[in-house]
Amino acid sequence: MAKYNLPQSVSYEAADNTLVILDQQKLPQEIVYLSLTSLEEVWQSIKELKVRGAPAIGIAAAWGLALHIQKQASGGVELDSIFQLARSYLASSRPTAVNLFWALDRMARCWELGLAQSQSLTALKAALLGEAAAIQEEDAAMCAAIGEHGLSLLEPGMRLLTHCNAGALATARYGTALAPIYLGQERGYNFSVFADETRPLLQGARLTTWELQQAGVEVTLICDSMVARLFTQFKIDAVLVGADRIAQNGDTANKIGTQGVALLAQHFKIPFYVLAPTSTVDPATPRGEAMVIEERDPTEVTTIGGVTVAPAGVKVYNPAFDVTSAALISAIITEKGVYSYPYMF
Amino acid sequence: MAKYNLPQSVSYEAADNTLVILDQQKLPQEIVYLSLTSLEEVWQSIKELKVRGAPAIGIAAAWGLALHIQKQASGGVELDSIFQLARSYLASSRPTAVNLFWALDRMARCWELGLAQSQSLTALKAALLGEAAAIQEEDAAMCAAIGEHGLSLLEPGMRLLTHCNAGALATARYGTALAPIYLGQERGYNFSVFADETRPLLQGARLTTWELQQAGVEVTLICDSMVARLFTQFKIDAVLVGADRIAQNGDTANKIGTQGVALLAQHFKIPFYVLAPTSTVDPATPRGEAMVIEERDPTEVTTIGGVTVAPAGVKVYNPAFDVTSAALISAIITEKGVYSYPYMF
Repeated sequence: MAKYNLPQSVSYEAADNTLVILDQQKLPQEIVYLSLTSLEEVWQSIKELKVRGAPAIGIAAAWGLALHIQKQASGGVELDSIFQLARSYLASSRPTAVNLFWALDRMARCWELGLAQSQSLTALKAALLGEAAAIQEEDAAMCAAIGEHGLSLLEPGMRLLTHCNAGALATARYGTALAPIYLGQERGYNFSVFADETRPLLQGARLTTWELQQAGVEVTLICDSMVARLFTQFKIDAVLVGADRIAQNGDTANKIGTQGVALLAQHFKIPFYVLAPTSTVDPATPRGEAMVIEERDPTEVTTIGGVTVAPAGVKVYNPAFDVTSAALISAIITEKGVYSYPYMF
Repeated sequence: MAKYNLPQSVSYEAADNTLVILDQQKLPQEIVYLSLTSLEEVWQSIKELKVRGAPAIGIAAAWGLALHIQKQASGGVELDSIFQLARSYLASSRPTAVNLFWALDRMARCWELGLAQSQSLTALKAALLGEAAAIQEEDAAMCAAIGEHGLSLLEPGMRLLTHCNAGALATARYGTALAPIYLGQERGYNFSVFADETRPLLQGARLTTWELQQAGVEVTLICDSMVARLFTQFKIDAVLVGADRIAQNGDTANKIGTQGVALLAQHFKIPFYVLAPTSTVDPATPRGEAMVIEERDPTEVTTIGGVTVAPAGVKVYNPAFDVTSAALISAIITEKGVYSYPYMF
């Protein structure tokens, strides 16, 4: 295992049937691990973004379902309705989170297989724990594979820039964009990482800097407005970002600000890499133009940590994501390997 | 005069020998006009950034000197030492503000001319009031001229982007980058303006949106990270920014983030205009590379309005300015006219 302190977003403790999550709402001011022992607490933690990042949410929900069933004393038809109710309840915590539904569906398939095989209550319980563990382990393995492929493009001592948080906190382990950095750290690569603060929600300032610090990686925080100056002043060797959705042609939707960084990277001839699991590639989206971008609440821009920074009633444009053209992306790295332009998924 | 409410950063009220300034530290949450009646209060207001923007600081200092002398009852050698002491004192309020020294020097020349001509105390007092008024009026006239030249490049209904605050608050009136917008507003141009928030100090979010709102200009706030998405999603017709220093070849130092916006504007083929008085062109700086960029305190990035947004001890890169290459600038607009690339000042 790693020789450093990589934060664990979600972990299950079998001895007392407890899900332990790192409260990401309190970071980086307070490092608080919450012990969740009920379905309601898991639901609340997802709802309130205490656990965030698509893979981490899916993993937490899977464990939530498993821990709820562990507490049941009798099987039969009644138990199935308890399972289905819990599944729907957890699905309502973040209604647009695809990974959440995917993980809950997978748990349901495991459950239904057990019922069809008339498994004992003990066996059903064990199967759910096994499935949740598998979801978590597969995510960790996938992140590690992304990290290995990504690391093959990097050299020791490189200066890297990342945007938003596609790190350990968002996944089972390693993250996606940050996975090569952690694997490099294990192997003495001594990367020097710059993190954009990522307004409006400051995932870079709050989360990326913190988790890199924890792992002993040298990290420097900048404002989003400083990228061009950074590229002018320092030789930056590569940009690493995650992805929310990748079109068939490689156009990539990711956290707002990514497109601007990609355009600046192109100008300064800096390789720009997208790292994400294959599941991020959407077969229903041929090109980026088709992607509908969510616009979020103005208060995300007009307030920061409860402090109002703009005049009352000002109009705000607050797109949550932007789309980076495939032609700007030097490589897309998935758990399966390194792809280069033109992309054909 | 204008048919709208353009905020007045600094104004002198002769009836009670009072300097009225708009407290820019309280904006946009509170609109507080401070009545300053002593040299010490003027010094304090400059020191504490209650009045900010190079021209506005110079104007406030000139009035501060004039109002202090109005209170003196007797002339002679003693009065000269009172003047010189007040001049040095005001010069110590913002030790690197070039406009401050320029305005104080100009007041001193007026004073010394009066002494040389053995003017009466009444005449000396009147001369200082006249000189301060001239400094203020000339700045307003210069801003208006910049605005006229800038407006000649624009059409009614255009969508414009600006960065930081080069507006009325920073000058006697109209501002520099915002001057064409205010003149257009007087003439029914109905511009639609987007303002970058301008991290770390949020001059765009706090000041530019507010003063445009006051003037009835349609304004929309975005984060700095949203510029590329804005350019993709909306047809933006021009970018208008001010300048802190312009090299002989047109390379322009301005608030951090300007260079990135200029590079994105070039990519999207959007005209990028720099608006500034001729005095901003530095004869001692042939090219942008020679410009030394101040790096400021990490807490500007790690805290916002007193709220900490990054982990303790994180390294920060916080350059206050960046340099935009002359080749990215479609035109430089001064009070003398519109200049285009290649620039030869």
